[in-house]
Amino acid sequence: MVDITLAVDVMGGDFGPRVTIPALEKALKQNPSLSFLLFGDEHQIAPLLQKHTLLNHPKIQIHHTEQVIEADVPFTTAIRQSKNSSMRLAIEAVKEGKAQGCVSGGNTGALMGLAKLLIEPLPNIERPALTSLIPTLNGKSSVMLDLGANIEVSNHQLQQFAEMGNLFAQVMLDLVYPRLSLLNIGTEENKGTAQLQAVHQLLKNRQDLNYTGFIESDKLTSYLTDVIICDGYTGNIALKALEGAAKNIISLFKKEKADSNICRNTKRYLLKAMFYRYYRKLQQINPDRHNGATLLGLSKVVVKSHGGANINAFYYAIDYAVQQIQGDIPNKILEGLTQK
Amino acid sequence: MVDITLAVDVMGGDFGPRVTIPALEKALKQNPSLSFLLFGDEHQIAPLLQKHTLLNHPKIQIHHTEQVIEADVPFTTAIRQSKNSSMRLAIEAVKEGKAQGCVSGGNTGALMGLAKLLIEPLPNIERPALTSLIPTLNGKSSVMLDLGANIEVSNHQLQQFAEMGNLFAQVMLDLVYPRLSLLNIGTEENKGTAQLQAVHQLLKNRQDLNYTGFIESDKLTSYLTDVIICDGYTGNIALKALEGAAKNIISLFKKEKADSNICRNTKRYLLKAMFYRYYRKLQQINPDRHNGATLLGLSKVVVKSHGGANINAFYYAIDYAVQQIQGDIPNKILEGLTQK
Repeated sequence: MVDITLAVDVMGGDFGPRVTIPALEKALKQNPSLSFLLFGDEHQIAPLLQKHTLLNHPKIQIHHTEQVIEADVPFTTAIRQSKNSSMRLAIEAVKEGKAQGCVSGGNTGALMGLAKLLIEPLPNIERPALTSLIPTLNGKSSVMLDLGANIEVSNHQLQQFAEMGNLFAQVMLDLVYPRLSLLNIGTEENKGTAQLQAVHQLLKNRQDLNYTGFIESDKLTSYLTDVIICDGYTGNIALKALEGAAKNIISLFKKEKADSNICRNTKRYLLKAMFYRYYRKLQQINPDRHNGATLLGLSKVVVKSHGGANINAFYYAIDYAVQQIQGDIPNKILEGLTQK
Repeated sequence: MVDITLAVDVMGGDFGPRVTIPALEKALKQNPSLSFLLFGDEHQIAPLLQKHTLLNHPKIQIHHTEQVIEADVPFTTAIRQSKNSSMRLAIEAVKEGKAQGCVSGGNTGALMGLAKLLIEPLPNIERPALTSLIPTLNGKSSVMLDLGANIEVSNHQLQQFAEMGNLFAQVMLDLVYPRLSLLNIGTEENKGTAQLQAVHQLLKNRQDLNYTGFIESDKLTSYLTDVIICDGYTGNIALKALEGAAKNIISLFKKEKADSNICRNTKRYLLKAMFYRYYRKLQQINPDRHNGATLLGLSKVVVKSHGGANINAFYYAIDYAVQQIQGDIPNKILEGLTQK
């Protein structure tokens, strides 16, 4: 297995190094070919590395900086704050070839802005698209893009999202001729916006793509398609609604589990024994396992983790970056679009 | 309690009278002030009424018709098919004052089209908006509109949705100065489309409305607001994503319950004993209990039920219509908008 170096914005996300350090420990254990460049406050990082017996680990380098981009500041403020910030330094390490990809749980607007500013887009790509794998009820995944990088897009850009999603699904989901669908408010040809109707006709005429038509947002996790295509506004609305519902329902479940009473342990045991399959199914659609969105269309791998990610979720974001690097996604997109 | 007469499109929905008749039986039991005008095929209706000992019931009148609008035909076909159809006759009964409202689980486009064609809109209402109550995790409800009647809207129309939603929440949720929010992909002022940013400023300047800003779609069920305002495209995408997730997760639960094995009864008993609160919480957010969308802004109450509604869900759609009639919603909207 080829060695992979990842740049990590250790300070990004609601919990900073308390989440990112244990997550990368898990990733190191799972994948010995990994190395990490860590960007952030050494005074916070070192004790945590020590706690996890990772201090002076040969595969971990710390690049100290005290600058951090705040989570909720507007884009322009964030960019102004970005000089020497942990996020910007992590992206610059990728730009300079010191790492093959980077992961950050920080300010989404800043990450997308800096990535587009610093990392070259692939030739002919008009707009990179925020792309995730989303869980399906049968335990598999679908690709969904754009999830928020582009609020308004042209018909041509939506078509390009279809092309990129097609190649991404081939590599990441190991599929031949993946099924592509446009997200819409109905499945009939006359449904939705004029743009969706126009792009529907364009995609129907593409012999090289396995376009299957419109899909509605209540079918996102039904495994009726492999790639869900939409503009960034629609994708963001749909995915957050889906994730919010899943998180909320799982939280009801967890609260019940955490209930304190004398038969708590019995309850937990019975729960595990009786509802194992059910619990496992819930876990399959747990958004944590699909944490990580990548800016598809750039020449390098840049992954955004949820700000609120826990250790497990941040681990999955790291793994998502690793899979893309191993799958040589940027080159596959480049070759695929050039061949056409 | 004032007597209420509802016109019911008995044939609408995936299961027709097999669902609608038992549902209205339940509604009659719950509310003795109800009467029903039933529109549909007498040969199918009569045996089912007999089965439920409702044949020749003084509060039920059958208006026979064999015409039905098909569920999945495009809007124009549906309108052509509509003459003497169960749906159209039910709406006409409302138009003619024979019933105060109607309920149908049939073709959504046709119902909205016919309702707008036959029932007068309130003065000054530019566009009626499809409006539902959506469940929140604490067991309460929020109002959400538009859910699909208007794919593209003007800034002024979005403001009008806010005004109508405000009055609807006051009556249906018994609230003073309900909290209003615009659905967007972020909560900062610079997020989302130019239209959302403009309407955000307009609503902020309205002293008569308790506008609290943007809300993201992962917070729809968090009870952070009482009225969620959006265009019909966005609302449809968000609500279907939410409902799809809830339905899918609840279906996992049901499948596990239905599992056949020797300790099934033990499992069921333990399930009930241990997870009662959890199960009840799940039921609170079960979309069945919030079935029913109304075309707000018309001079009469027209409620759309989900096509796939089961008996319980269709009962809730009937109840939703009844509550609106009891609350005198069309007049409250009229008065509220006139006062302004």
